[in-house]
Amino acid sequence: MRKIIFATKNGGKFREVKKLFDSTDIELISLNDFDNIPDIDENGNTFIENATIKAMEIYKLFKRPVIADDSGLSVEALNGAPGVVSARYAGKDASDKENNYKLLKELEKFEEPYKAKFICASVYYNGKELISACGEMHGKIIKEASGGNGFGYDPLFVPNGYDLTNGELELSEKNKISHRAKAFNKLIKKII
Amino acid sequence: MRKIIFATKNGGKFREVKKLFDSTDIELISLNDFDNIPDIDENGNTFIENATIKAMEIYKLFKRPVIADDSGLSVEALNGAPGVVSARYAGKDASDKENNYKLLKELEKFEEPYKAKFICASVYYNGKELISACGEMHGKIIKEASGGNGFGYDPLFVPNGYDLTNGELELSEKNKISHRAKAFNKLIKKII
Repeated sequence: MRKIIFATKNGGKFREVKKLFDSTDIELISLNDFDNIPDIDENGNTFIENATIKAMEIYKLFKRPVIADDSGLSVEALNGAPGVVSARYAGKDASDKENNYKLLKELEKFEEPYKAKFICASVYYNGKELISACGEMHGKIIKEASGGNGFGYDPLFVPNGYDLTNGELELSEKNKISHRAKAFNKLIKKII
Repeated sequence: MRKIIFATKNGGKFREVKKLFDSTDIELISLNDFDNIPDIDENGNTFIENATIKAMEIYKLFKRPVIADDSGLSVEALNGAPGVVSARYAGKDASDKENNYKLLKELEKFEEPYKAKFICASVYYNGKELISACGEMHGKIIKEASGGNGFGYDPLFVPNGYDLTNGELELSEKNKISHRAKAFNKLIKKII
């Protein structure tokens, strides 16, 4: 097995992506398996820039192959917000709940349906090569949170063609259609 | 023609790379065609990191597709130096001549042949996708500078299989074998 560090401390994200690598010869290692990982300043202007910054910072620490991603929600009525600040929409260290609340607050003055998409940029970096792949999942935001699966805005997002929120979908189902699954499945093809 | 900004102010490098795009539908635009381009802090640890930093910074300014590269010389006896600081080996804003002088000074205590390679990392970035490709050219450093073509360490570098320095080779010949040509030819295949 080749070991690759996945530059995330987010347990939900780690589980989701690890599953995608099940059928490969790559074993993902979580940042939570290491001590004293500094916080990385994700100051890029796009998802791909943030994913690249993360991959490079973690590579610098371990000098081992790394994958990283950055993702977020882009809502049409909000001109693409929350975008790259999806995880801290309601402020630094905001909880998922606080971010969801702020999103619905911002949407109050608009009419449904709230068209939205999740975007994911994934990056592989080994000190010499940088390989990237992106994926999107289109759908809408609903007013009532539902479901305990996933993380982030999942309870508010209903993918096109579904009646369930991402929070209600099983991981196996979400991994067929999600932005992250699409991005990483493309990335896997490029690196295996 | 698609227009892509090539993130370099180095005229020699621009000419060299522009030639490689001759047979494509891509027209390269030089940074020298724009005013007030700030200096970019190339603080990466590797060629690919510096190329990526450059591409992202220039993309931020123009929001248009960018290619960038970073390259340098890696000398075996010097454990890979000058490496990422090739262009400023003798100090910030050092001339090619000063860098060449310093290289020969550092090599004085070693015996010939001075095995070396040029390495180039190239990157394409359009705000969504990041694509990279690398190339190497192997050869040796000689003690007597020769030839006025090219730039950087070219007058001191003799590629394997040649009796001439890079500084003596015609651009058309250099573009068949150079690290930069290899990197950009690979990159071109990925982006056309």
